[in-house]
Amino acid sequence: MGNCQVTFLPHNRAITVPEGESLIRAAMQAGVHINASCGGEGVCAKCRVQIEKGTVTGGLSDRFSAEEAQRGCRLACQARIGGDVTVRVPVESAIDRIVFDKQFTPRRTARIRQMNFESLKERGLFIPPVEKTYLELPLPDAQNNMPDVTRLIEYLKLQGNEHKLEMTIPVIRRLPSILRENQFKATVTLVRPVRDDGKTLITNIQAGDTTAENYAIALDIGTTTIYAQLIDLSSGESLAEAGDFNGQISYGEDVISRIIYAEKPGGLETLQKTVVATINKVLGIIIKQAGVSRQNISTITMAGNTTMTQLLLAIDPRYLRRSPYVPASTLYPPFQAHTIGIDLDEHVIALLYPAIASYVGGDIVAGIMGTGLYRDDELTLFLDIGTNAEIVIGNKDWLACTACSAGPAFEGGGIEFGMRASTGAIEDFSIDPVTYEPMLVTIGDVRPKGICGSGLINMVALMFETGVINNRGKFNRDHGTKRIRANRGIWEFVLAWKDETQIGRDITLSEIDIDNLIRAKGAVYSGCMTLLEEVGLSMDAIERIILAGGFGSYIDLEKAMTIGLLPEIDPDRVIFIGNGSLMGARMSSLTNRIRKDVVEVTKRMTNFELSETPSYMDHYVAAMFIPHTEIEKFPGVKRRIKAWKDLQAIPGR
Amino acid sequence: MGNCQVTFLPHNRAITVPEGESLIRAAMQAGVHINASCGGEGVCAKCRVQIEKGTVTGGLSDRFSAEEAQRGCRLACQARIGGDVTVRVPVESAIDRIVFDKQFTPRRTARIRQMNFESLKERGLFIPPVEKTYLELPLPDAQNNMPDVTRLIEYLKLQGNEHKLEMTIPVIRRLPSILRENQFKATVTLVRPVRDDGKTLITNIQAGDTTAENYAIALDIGTTTIYAQLIDLSSGESLAEAGDFNGQISYGEDVISRIIYAEKPGGLETLQKTVVATINKVLGIIIKQAGVSRQNISTITMAGNTTMTQLLLAIDPRYLRRSPYVPASTLYPPFQAHTIGIDLDEHVIALLYPAIASYVGGDIVAGIMGTGLYRDDELTLFLDIGTNAEIVIGNKDWLACTACSAGPAFEGGGIEFGMRASTGAIEDFSIDPVTYEPMLVTIGDVRPKGICGSGLINMVALMFETGVINNRGKFNRDHGTKRIRANRGIWEFVLAWKDETQIGRDITLSEIDIDNLIRAKGAVYSGCMTLLEEVGLSMDAIERIILAGGFGSYIDLEKAMTIGLLPEIDPDRVIFIGNGSLMGARMSSLTNRIRKDVVEVTKRMTNFELSETPSYMDHYVAAMFIPHTEIEKFPGVKRRIKAWKDLQAIPGR
Repeated sequence: MGNCQVTFLPHNRAITVPEGESLIRAAMQAGVHINASCGGEGVCAKCRVQIEKGTVTGGLSDRFSAEEAQRGCRLACQARIGGDVTVRVPVESAIDRIVFDKQFTPRRTARIRQMNFESLKERGLFIPPVEKTYLELPLPDAQNNMPDVTRLIEYLKLQGNEHKLEMTIPVIRRLPSILRENQFKATVTLVRPVRDDGKTLITNIQAGDTTAENYAIALDIGTTTIYAQLIDLSSGESLAEAGDFNGQISYGEDVISRIIYAEKPGGLETLQKTVVATINKVLGIIIKQAGVSRQNISTITMAGNTTMTQLLLAIDPRYLRRSPYVPASTLYPPFQAHTIGIDLDEHVIALLYPAIASYVGGDIVAGIMGTGLYRDDELTLFLDIGTNAEIVIGNKDWLACTACSAGPAFEGGGIEFGMRASTGAIEDFSIDPVTYEPMLVTIGDVRPKGICGSGLINMVALMFETGVINNRGKFNRDHGTKRIRANRGIWEFVLAWKDETQIGRDITLSEIDIDNLIRAKGAVYSGCMTLLEEVGLSMDAIERIILAGGFGSYIDLEKAMTIGLLPEIDPDRVIFIGNGSLMGARMSSLTNRIRKDVVEVTKRMTNFELSETPSYMDHYVAAMFIPHTEIEKFPGVKRRIKAWKDLQAIPGR
Repeated sequence: MGNCQVTFLPHNRAITVPEGESLIRAAMQAGVHINASCGGEGVCAKCRVQIEKGTVTGGLSDRFSAEEAQRGCRLACQARIGGDVTVRVPVESAIDRIVFDKQFTPRRTARIRQMNFESLKERGLFIPPVEKTYLELPLPDAQNNMPDVTRLIEYLKLQGNEHKLEMTIPVIRRLPSILRENQFKATVTLVRPVRDDGKTLITNIQAGDTTAENYAIALDIGTTTIYAQLIDLSSGESLAEAGDFNGQISYGEDVISRIIYAEKPGGLETLQKTVVATINKVLGIIIKQAGVSRQNISTITMAGNTTMTQLLLAIDPRYLRRSPYVPASTLYPPFQAHTIGIDLDEHVIALLYPAIASYVGGDIVAGIMGTGLYRDDELTLFLDIGTNAEIVIGNKDWLACTACSAGPAFEGGGIEFGMRASTGAIEDFSIDPVTYEPMLVTIGDVRPKGICGSGLINMVALMFETGVINNRGKFNRDHGTKRIRANRGIWEFVLAWKDETQIGRDITLSEIDIDNLIRAKGAVYSGCMTLLEEVGLSMDAIERIILAGGFGSYIDLEKAMTIGLLPEIDPDRVIFIGNGSLMGARMSSLTNRIRKDVVEVTKRMTNFELSETPSYMDHYVAAMFIPHTEIEKFPGVKRRIKAWKDLQAIPGR
């Protein structure tokens, strides 16, 4: 399927989208507002547009007259783009085209960047942490009957210039028979030490030449989901990837409830076994998908937050949730994966990403390592936003981190119609600056069921820019729209009328919902501010933002800046890395450079406990506005507010 | 009980023995012959002596007249020494006292030497391999909430100048609760690395101060018996020791039959579990005896021959018994003892003595390390004699070793009336040079049942010196004694007539028995010769002999030289160390110096396979004489033969 150019009139705004995309999503992406409430099911029939050139499929409605249909009337939510198209959007006011051009900003999500194997090689950072070497040993005879281990190690010393070798007992156990299986031709797996003066471990021996097959597993152990990748260590490619819900969810949704469960008799053991069961399930899937033999899996690298890490190792997590929030350890030594129940062969060595603090865990460290920000010059803000937000600021010279409780707003929690990002969630939003009619885009293009995090941010941002709410998140009660109303004393905005929804009730956004979002974004922003202040810098110093975690992928950067979740920065300098934990695990499967560096990084990353930093509360209070008390820091927002005002002031409407 | 001086007349030979010793054993030790066949039960009544001064208890017989009893007649085998005594032995010939003085050599066993803790300290070799350190850590608070592991390690770095520390996951698992049990006052166990640049492992954490209790276990895993010692690491003292038969005996008496059993389906697992069961039983005994807590046992050091080592670790031993006799490994890495089923706490690290070759195992290396011969100037012959004899020759500059099959003669096997050294075994022997009447001393002072190894050597030596047999082990058929007789064509010597025995049959020593002993001693001696020749030396170069193993403790050194088992050397230069394997295990529990050195020692110890050394057969043929074809090498034997001849030639007998 090719790409098509879609031109919207009267805006005269063009965008390139894949063939088959719906017109309404193309419009949203282009920053073109079209009234639409029913999420694409065609029931509201508000999103009528006219195709002036090119072809679309679908989008006809029995509400159109034959003549209308004939001259190109279609429902934007149901019409799919079939080639280059020119579409006219009916506007209810005589808005100058020039204003349109100034006004609308196309939806802008972060660039996705993933480190890869080739870039590692190019940058000279590729040091294989696990290698296979094929050996053809001289056969033993009466004159040379040295022990099997000695024969092998001497050969590696002389032929491979390998030193400080150590063979594990399980390998020694298999050595005599494996060597004799194929005339002393065999392949050994060498696991490199993390410290330069450490030992190289010989962890596996296989008959014949198996060097072509050498695999690693990268594993992200999330509180909610567990993802695994199977990586070919020769090519650096990911051969398979799978994920599943962490079985521990049955014992509590968040880390705190898991810790509480772990404190019950037998609870820790249950949680440990449960997470391992999920891991084994996911591993089973990727190993089957990739069609590789378990014998050829050499290593597994895992990353998870501090609670997940301690639960995986059956380390009592009770002190993680009690002041002064002390984790058991940062670094964990490598260990045999099977010893904790992971269904991999005895030879597989597991590496676990170190944590920094109780609420800045191995998942964050993995993101830092995987992005390489610890080696870069640019001062970077690394953000992983969920119920907890982890914040890292730094570069090659210094690193500071903290965590704050953002509350569940970004995941749809604490919002009356909030929901997780699943089918029926309003994920994108636009509003007519004059009529205040909304344009809703839902996941799955179905009638709305609720609002997910990214939708929430977009709503609040646009409502603020267009003056629907003020900088404290209160509705302008004077707007002449029935969508703004008081409901049992609480002001709200009706996003979709009950007939347009799946739930048979009006879906609204209330001042309480907005307040929750402000608190959440205020917590994150003031966390960043506090961290910067502690190192003597201000927000202007940030040269780059890296977003990690599922949330970051859907965020409209401009909107996130409008509400003051992110500082204002050129969107080109915002990078989205997706699952940073999995990425870091993959990267350190590929190069020992990262495994070596991580020890250093954990040492130089300073953790700040916000609750112990007096200025945090001041920053928090200052951040309880949209975008912030100091709007001067957000010139873009100011500019956009002005543009909306100009638009709204055009006479003749 | 004090010591008493016993003077024998007419020999005028005095000896000091403990009060309560039997007269006949005192005589044997003094080299005084008294006819005696019944082993001390009083039935033969041949061992009549007369007490001239002092007191003995017991030894009266109804065969004595009242007058005889009155003037001091006693049976030497039953009379026990009660103070300084002068005893007259009836001699049947007019032998000059001066000849006696020249003739008899007191029984001379090797000096016992055991290395000890004090000598290690004096020699500056004491480097504790496992230490406990008591810590009073600063309590965590909001300003200092570093992880528990970091807190502990930082403290050890700053306060203890400890570096390169690594904590095992089981310790991390226990750390949070143990630290909080006693206000962050705790004791850690530090296991030092074998390599100088290695890591110090933190293997245990205990609440409060437990530094006073730090124990090690030394374990000798013999084919027949398993011995263990529990050692106090503060004082170096052994608090308890116990042994038991290796349960694997049910599956075969010697290593070869064990290997054959291990090759059967499930055999290896059975043997592994069986030896571990015996180990656990013995450990249970010593831990109970010493009354220590398992929590305070920090380490176990084990030594065994190559087969025992491989069976312990469940490493297929089949190639040990097949040419070219290749063991799996020499060195084994340290491991957690509980992982192979040993009933010690999870934190206990096991060290296994490395082997040199299939038939020179960790038990021998332990002996070499424990005696310190690898650090000495003197060129030493180290011998561990059993069914297999292991031979090490060397000093601080070089070490060569080999093993030979001596056959079971030294353990009483292949000898018609041979038996193990247990009750009823003739363990010592003397013979009247004129009448050829024997003097038998049995284990347990009971009527004889058979002959054990030391008895056999003494018999053959004295029979050779007194001309009863010639240098090919054939009886002088012309002696006028009915004790020398042909039995179904095979010549033999009657040691005890059937009425004097427990078995109701004459106990004899045949030419076939003697031939078996000659083959056994010939194998050992020619092994030593071959080893020396391979390094360009001859037997004269040997400056010291160290005997290890149970056999060595009973050996009469002069007799062993007479038969040509040992080269002639000043008996003062022969040392007996007892169980060298256990001693080495104990010594390396006490000092890391040995643990470090052993790696080097295994590298510089050259193993020679006798079957692959052409000169071995020549040396063997030359050693098939008593003492050897080259009797010039045995001037002492020549001298003694001459003295006996002179004695036998005294006229008037």
